[in-house]
Amino acid sequence: MRFGSGLWLFGQFIDRYATDAYGPPVSTIEAIERAGEVGDLEVLDINYPFSDPDITVAEVQRALDAHGLSTWCITPHIYTRAFTGGAFTNPDPAVRKQALELCEQAVDVAKQLGSDTVKLWPGQDGFDYPFQSDYGQLWRLELEGVSTVAAMDSDVRVAIEYKAKEPRNHMSFSSAARTLLGIAQTGRDDIGVVVDLGHSLFAKETPADVLQLVHDHDKLFTIEVNDNWREWDDDMVVGSVHLVETLEFFLGVRKIGWDKPILLDQFPFRENPVEAAKTSIETMKAIDRTLDRLDVDTLHTIQERQDPLAAQRLIRDLLLGDVRVTS
Amino acid sequence: MRFGSGLWLFGQFIDRYATDAYGPPVSTIEAIERAGEVGDLEVLDINYPFSDPDITVAEVQRALDAHGLSTWCITPHIYTRAFTGGAFTNPDPAVRKQALELCEQAVDVAKQLGSDTVKLWPGQDGFDYPFQSDYGQLWRLELEGVSTVAAMDSDVRVAIEYKAKEPRNHMSFSSAARTLLGIAQTGRDDIGVVVDLGHSLFAKETPADVLQLVHDHDKLFTIEVNDNWREWDDDMVVGSVHLVETLEFFLGVRKIGWDKPILLDQFPFRENPVEAAKTSIETMKAIDRTLDRLDVDTLHTIQERQDPLAAQRLIRDLLLGDVRVTS
Amino acid sequence: MRFGSGLWLFGQFIDRYATDAYGPPVSTIEAIERAGEVGDLEVLDINYPFSDPDITVAEVQRALDAHGLSTWCITPHIYTRAFTGGAFTNPDPAVRKQALELCEQAVDVAKQLGSDTVKLWPGQDGFDYPFQSDYGQLWRLELEGVSTVAAMDSDVRVAIEYKAKEPRNHMSFSSAARTLLGIAQTGRDDIGVVVDLGHSLFAKETPADVLQLVHDHDKLFTIEVNDNWREWDDDMVVGSVHLVETLEFFLGVRKIGWDKPILLDQFPFRENPVEAAKTSIETMKAIDRTLDRLDVDTLHTIQERQDPLAAQRLIRDLLLGDVRVTS
Amino acid sequence: MRFGSGLWLFGQFIDRYATDAYGPPVSTIEAIERAGEVGDLEVLDINYPFSDPDITVAEVQRALDAHGLSTWCITPHIYTRAFTGGAFTNPDPAVRKQALELCEQAVDVAKQLGSDTVKLWPGQDGFDYPFQSDYGQLWRLELEGVSTVAAMDSDVRVAIEYKAKEPRNHMSFSSAARTLLGIAQTGRDDIGVVVDLGHSLFAKETPADVLQLVHDHDKLFTIEVNDNWREWDDDMVVGSVHLVETLEFFLGVRKIGWDKPILLDQFPFRENPVEAAKTSIETMKAIDRTLDRLDVDTLHTIQERQDPLAAQRLIRDLLLGDVRVTS
Repeated sequence: MRFGSGLWLFGQFIDRYATDAYGPPVSTIEAIERAGEVGDLEVLDINYPFSDPDITVAEVQRALDAHGLSTWCITPHIYTRAFTGGAFTNPDPAVRKQALELCEQAVDVAKQLGSDTVKLWPGQDGFDYPFQSDYGQLWRLELEGVSTVAAMDSDVRVAIEYKAKEPRNHMSFSSAARTLLGIAQTGRDDIGVVVDLGHSLFAKETPADVLQLVHDHDKLFTIEVNDNWREWDDDMVVGSVHLVETLEFFLGVRKIGWDKPILLDQFPFRENPVEAAKTSIETMKAIDRTLDRLDVDTLHTIQERQDPLAAQRLIRDLLLGDVRVTS
Repeated sequence: MRFGSGLWLFGQFIDRYATDAYGPPVSTIEAIERAGEVGDLEVLDINYPFSDPDITVAEVQRALDAHGLSTWCITPHIYTRAFTGGAFTNPDPAVRKQALELCEQAVDVAKQLGSDTVKLWPGQDGFDYPFQSDYGQLWRLELEGVSTVAAMDSDVRVAIEYKAKEPRNHMSFSSAARTLLGIAQTGRDDIGVVVDLGHSLFAKETPADVLQLVHDHDKLFTIEVNDNWREWDDDMVVGSVHLVETLEFFLGVRKIGWDKPILLDQFPFRENPVEAAKTSIETMKAIDRTLDRLDVDTLHTIQERQDPLAAQRLIRDLLLGDVRVTS
Repeated sequence: MRFGSGLWLFGQFIDRYATDAYGPPVSTIEAIERAGEVGDLEVLDINYPFSDPDITVAEVQRALDAHGLSTWCITPHIYTRAFTGGAFTNPDPAVRKQALELCEQAVDVAKQLGSDTVKLWPGQDGFDYPFQSDYGQLWRLELEGVSTVAAMDSDVRVAIEYKAKEPRNHMSFSSAARTLLGIAQTGRDDIGVVVDLGHSLFAKETPADVLQLVHDHDKLFTIEVNDNWREWDDDMVVGSVHLVETLEFFLGVRKIGWDKPILLDQFPFRENPVEAAKTSIETMKAIDRTLDRLDVDTLHTIQERQDPLAAQRLIRDLLLGDVRVTS
Repeated sequence: MRFGSGLWLFGQFIDRYATDAYGPPVSTIEAIERAGEVGDLEVLDINYPFSDPDITVAEVQRALDAHGLSTWCITPHIYTRAFTGGAFTNPDPAVRKQALELCEQAVDVAKQLGSDTVKLWPGQDGFDYPFQSDYGQLWRLELEGVSTVAAMDSDVRVAIEYKAKEPRNHMSFSSAARTLLGIAQTGRDDIGVVVDLGHSLFAKETPADVLQLVHDHDKLFTIEVNDNWREWDDDMVVGSVHLVETLEFFLGVRKIGWDKPILLDQFPFRENPVEAAKTSIETMKAIDRTLDRLDVDTLHTIQERQDPLAAQRLIRDLLLGDVRVTS
């Protein structure tokens, strides 16, 4: 197993209630340093613009180098104040242009940092109220936006992170299937999907199912992980609530032969971020060892006959069994 | 506006608690007679096999004729006892074959009754438990099943009705986007989608949005309507809970130029079915008159700037305004 | 750990789609025999009337005796056809009277079978549609109903099983807190709560929290267990989906010192019921052994400082740890 | 109908994505001025501490006076950085003390501003992770906290605003019934409930039902209104999504004879706040006029027989009827 993380995990958190933030500001460089403390991370998903306009790409690269980290992708901030009315779906062409310009910079920064991916997280794209939007037009604008970014540089591909809602009440890319469908409409090979375990749970999907679906469409660009209470994107430690489905998800990760890093997407509002990251990574390693003990041949025959009780017994023995006590 | 109905609306209801049913048995012929009492129905979605093996297709046709009704589609019972372990996704090839044979009969009955559509509602296809299934294999079986039915007769097309769950804990065709994606994978033109307003609400979709999406993919074969509390497929009277979104949905129906019947999909467990159907139809007629009063040009300019407050005022005046009092 | 079960687990299942049922009819006596096959059950929650009017209480007692079983409680069928418009909340006083008469028989049968509890599961009490009901009046009728049953016999107490919905779209007793509040309004000591793990998950409660809450109000009469996908009362095998919260629930069961049986509430529609019951019981035994390994003192200090990451690590090591491999 | 508002509606909004906020900072005084622009507001729910430590209570009073506004209640900021680990439930007694001290100041400010109510919105009280907390202890701390505040001054009562979650993953006061139950446990008369229409929808309650329930327990201290998509506290314009249930809620408001102001609780992230407030108020006035046209005697007889279809027809004619066209 290889690991990475979103850089935001190590930054400052704020929300609409604790408007004085959950902690002091953290610069991009400081966040990279914190990421370095985790010890198991190889790559980072880095937000752009950086925390401070004075920070240069070279300084970021040096900070990464100093901690043995590299850049998985660049994620442009297309959801801050300028874009709260939408980035690609903004009714104002000038704002849409501004979003594309920011994406172009992100493409450039990605190349400079040696990454082949720009991640788009269009969290402000979509709508809030009934009757507010022409849905056909909204969808066309969204697809046009991601296509334009994908066309910017033949060496940089686009990974779309879908989510049901937040900050927009309804996001345009709301589910794995909807995102795959949109990508097919663009007709482009260089647009893919971020399967985020927590977003999938929140979308009331079966994460292991959509992981396979996206893989089978050859569109799996990034895997992000966390957990939540399935009613919201709580961005918690991996496996802390939905352990059984998380285990199934990681079995799916093995099945498709994923050998690239798996990225953390957490918001440890009230916790130490380095410790929160470590806790998830240790959990994933423990899941990996647990999967080593899984009798996949038996599982295969169980799944051939779709036997729920046999499947439950197998998983129960894996998680609750005391075979190991006697070994 | 033109109307139709699922024939089940006029039949006997049962569930896992009221195991002695909510009322006495109703034959296919009696249900057609009840449908005839509604007065506004043109077409029916008819389940096959009929309630009694002695009932012939000719008798059904005569009953339809006697009430000025015709057949919108035939829906084979691929979710009764024989298929509780799945129809197209059943692990047993013999059961899958049995399901296809039943569908073949449905295709034949559809042609005899002058319909060009078989509706597939694979409510038992999918899975119940984590680790029970190989998701890739399950999806392939499901697509293979619907493709095989579509290929049975070049004059009869297939309409897929998706739903998130029930009776299976997780249904294979779970959302509009997932269904469109699956249809694209089959590569067939003769497979389309049933957009059921209530299933869309239950899937946490925006009904007007997916109606447009399915239409834009040229895959809208049938529209079914009802309402629910969004947590389950309650199959209630149209507009009884989500009136605003229902109004938006019917605006979408106008927008795409749908001139075929709109079918009722209700389960009036505790109500008189004829009265329940009439209540929905009267509501739809009232919605239609309300939409006549909607200033669509103003709405168009509002949606061009995606203005939520202006949209709300427009709709509020439509539903709560007293302009009409003074007119 | 001691176990019991609802007798329905071993009966015939039907729903609104598989109207020919998931299997053949099962008599009350046959269901008891199946329960006896499980091997670990001490007590049963028995529905009344029995499957066949010819079956006598004496015959039921003999069947129980033959399998070393006894009666935990009697649950009157106040949700079948006669009561689909409500039992205690039915607008028709004659139906409310009929419901009370059935409860009176249930009280009598409970005493004959040596049980001190009648369970009320008023699944048809509540409402379906907005504006259908006067909520104050509905609540008064519901409380009046359960109070009347509780007053029937000083030796027989009443246990209320709450659920958010189904079969009624909105059930009157919808959550643990609402039920406790209603019981307080009745002012009676002989009315308590059934905490059903699955109903609690479905109500979006924290099961371990409401278990403690009901216990602290001295109102915990019965514990029922199962699992579901949290969107519906799927009545699945214990721990199959929400293993972490199930573990926490059983820790809560230990904490309050519950030494009575824990009852299964499953609907194994597509599975062998005896095997489904055994799978849950084996899971609970494995959970119990797992809890034996939990360092409760450490957990106590973690909870004193409300430390989420330390809590996660403790539980992760318990479920995924390989300490045991080396022991 | 009389109106008020939470002062936050007119302030600056921020969330975890648009970390540069949805607009520029707004001082308490400026927010009051904006509230004054709405034109229909009588009272305000005012957060304390004010936006700037230099702002005095006298200045606030002058600003209120200048716009014909008065203070409905003071809401202490017990959910900012100092309290992100909980206010009353914080594991650290020093933080709990700090929260109480802030509440004491709020009590004092309330009195100075002529208000008899401190509103407690303990959004950080509760827990995030399984196994993090001793639920019994957490509940005791929460009840102890609100009791202590209520005991601070015999002229100032406490109103508790419940919500299912946010910012804490699970809030201690999560539903109307849970809050009523907790208040009963405190044994105090001076603690009541804020029924917030949107929080009730989000809690999957029936708002008109819990309004009646809280009223019948003599605990209705404040009514707040807004709307959402029922999956989150979106804080939208009143009636924009759930118009039918909103209408039913306001019928309930009439029924209990509420003659005090109804307060807005909105977060118009992307809208002009004055316009957003006006849109809600106009909607409520339109609802009020609509209710004037409702035949309550007919509704009463419908509800006596709990007739869903008659109820639907009555409401449909009210909202979609064209009787008015001909008048």
